[in-house]
Amino acid sequence: MGNEKNLKVWKLALLGFGNAGQAFAKMLLDHEEEIASNYGAKVIVTAIATGRRGNLVCGSGSEATDAEGIDLRRALADVKSPAGKFTDETVLTSMTTMEIVAQADYDILVEMTPLNIQTGQPAIDHIRGAFRRGKHAVTANKGPIAWAYRSLRDMAKEAGVRFCYETTVMDGTPVFNLAEHTLRLAKVTEVSGILNSTTNFILEELAAGAEYEDIMRRGRERGFIEADPAMDIEGYDAAAKITALLNVLMDAGLTPDQVDRKGIEDITEGDIQEAASRGKVIKLLCRGWRNADGTVHASVQPTEVDRSDMLASIDSTTSIVSITTDLMKKLSVVEHQPEIEQTAYGIFGDVLRVICE
Amino acid sequence: MGNEKNLKVWKLALLGFGNAGQAFAKMLLDHEEEIASNYGAKVIVTAIATGRRGNLVCGSGSEATDAEGIDLRRALADVKSPAGKFTDETVLTSMTTMEIVAQADYDILVEMTPLNIQTGQPAIDHIRGAFRRGKHAVTANKGPIAWAYRSLRDMAKEAGVRFCYETTVMDGTPVFNLAEHTLRLAKVTEVSGILNSTTNFILEELAAGAEYEDIMRRGRERGFIEADPAMDIEGYDAAAKITALLNVLMDAGLTPDQVDRKGIEDITEGDIQEAASRGKVIKLLCRGWRNADGTVHASVQPTEVDRSDMLASIDSTTSIVSITTDLMKKLSVVEHQPEIEQTAYGIFGDVLRVICE
Repeated sequence: MGNEKNLKVWKLALLGFGNAGQAFAKMLLDHEEEIASNYGAKVIVTAIATGRRGNLVCGSGSEATDAEGIDLRRALADVKSPAGKFTDETVLTSMTTMEIVAQADYDILVEMTPLNIQTGQPAIDHIRGAFRRGKHAVTANKGPIAWAYRSLRDMAKEAGVRFCYETTVMDGTPVFNLAEHTLRLAKVTEVSGILNSTTNFILEELAAGAEYEDIMRRGRERGFIEADPAMDIEGYDAAAKITALLNVLMDAGLTPDQVDRKGIEDITEGDIQEAASRGKVIKLLCRGWRNADGTVHASVQPTEVDRSDMLASIDSTTSIVSITTDLMKKLSVVEHQPEIEQTAYGIFGDVLRVICE
Repeated sequence: MGNEKNLKVWKLALLGFGNAGQAFAKMLLDHEEEIASNYGAKVIVTAIATGRRGNLVCGSGSEATDAEGIDLRRALADVKSPAGKFTDETVLTSMTTMEIVAQADYDILVEMTPLNIQTGQPAIDHIRGAFRRGKHAVTANKGPIAWAYRSLRDMAKEAGVRFCYETTVMDGTPVFNLAEHTLRLAKVTEVSGILNSTTNFILEELAAGAEYEDIMRRGRERGFIEADPAMDIEGYDAAAKITALLNVLMDAGLTPDQVDRKGIEDITEGDIQEAASRGKVIKLLCRGWRNADGTVHASVQPTEVDRSDMLASIDSTTSIVSITTDLMKKLSVVEHQPEIEQTAYGIFGDVLRVICE
């Protein structure tokens, strides 16, 4: 870090500071020297907006925080404290999230607020606010990609800024970047996958003979299953993910409500055993393909697959996306048993992309 | 193509014009307009060297061939003719392959000569010859990556030219490019996979109860099995591939003779059935990991995997590479049932990379 004064400084505004945001902040701290030596850059955080921990923003006049940004180690310690609230008076602010988007001093907005699966808001407005000011945006929130991809893409292009969203499907596993950077001139004709780990876990446990209530209890304990699992079980989460994939990879211009969606709520243990007797396994499969009229059809459906099929081996929190193109036929990418660090890496990788490409 | 005069011209020298080379030539012809509109480039072929069809080179003074390169449609028709030899007198040459490397007018050398799995030669010398002249190189031949990766990488760096080799493992499926472009700052700690389709096909057929001689006959008919299958069956091909992966992804500095290699030559139908009785499948698994002393260990070994494991579902010509990194844990890439066009796309994608990055 001898040449610190020659490093290009990149300022981040973090919207959301939950598990993924905290893991991302740790990853930034851990890689400070590598970012300097590999990219000649120094990444600082100049704003953090949260739901109930308080909001932080730099630029209140303190020279130390203006040069070094928010003290991330302190912010991380604060959220682990009993009160769970930010305490650094030099940066605490009464600004709202939208005011931070509109007024704070940052180069890259990092959107990590909770998903509203019905509208994609307010995350869409956050990102629009950044683009309006000529700032880059990285989103881990899939709402904007599922509900407003085309308009955000066009807005970013017009503003001459980057819009990155690798984390929105399969965490940091390269899916969007794979298509963009490694499949040049290949046209995507079909996308499919198993994208929701809650339903995958439930189907697997039912197949193993577990009781529904017991599955839900253990799933909640292991963190796979949310307090209100309806969004997963009824296929809304999977629908948002396949929509995001199709919007980016096939310029589908879809919204999640246009997906031919069926969840696993009606699948019984009897259905699963009957399928098993024929050598089949039931998976909640997401698919999209282009219709003859050029539109893209998307579906989320419980689907029987052969026990010898690769899809049958996708267990618990593992997920898979298969992409078929005209030039490379079908290839698949599998993420094995991710933890929160893999989500953080998706954001980290996108930030590095903005910095160095 | 209205602005043809503004296109940047890239000249290719093709060493080898077998099935992959021909499919690549067709892909170039089919995408001429897209290359122009997307990259502002025009790719022409100014030399082709072959074992027994003759050699072609531009620059003999004809203005037409100097501007447009070799007539690829005619070259493709020639190799399909009964004589199978090039006929275009305006470009036929008595120059040898090494003379073409050293003297022909090209920007990118495309190395597609047959693999010498024991030495990597003469492909290594071809590529060195290109680098010595400050030319880029794309190789579909894995010999150079398995036998001389470090020295070629350093030579390319010194010469300020690109060295691309995506096709050497799993055709055009992004493996090397995935690591380079989508996993920034992530360190590879382990690599594994099923990389040889001949042995995969034989093991699968033995498990299904087929007779060895019958398998070999059908494999030859379908093009999976070479006239002399020893290189596949004894694990030499798999060893070269895992070496290539480890040399690039983990800077292993290995050669294929350092791989702890065992083929499938001693696996009997009895072994397979005994494994099946325990719910296991035998696969020829390639693996590499870093030892405590920093060196990289590589192995190719027949290995039992659970029937429910993803590896068990990798059938016939499908292949898989799993990459474990510190930041993204384990992810896998699968190529499903490739044809020769997928090999051609690997070369095509690498050429596009040289042109536009």
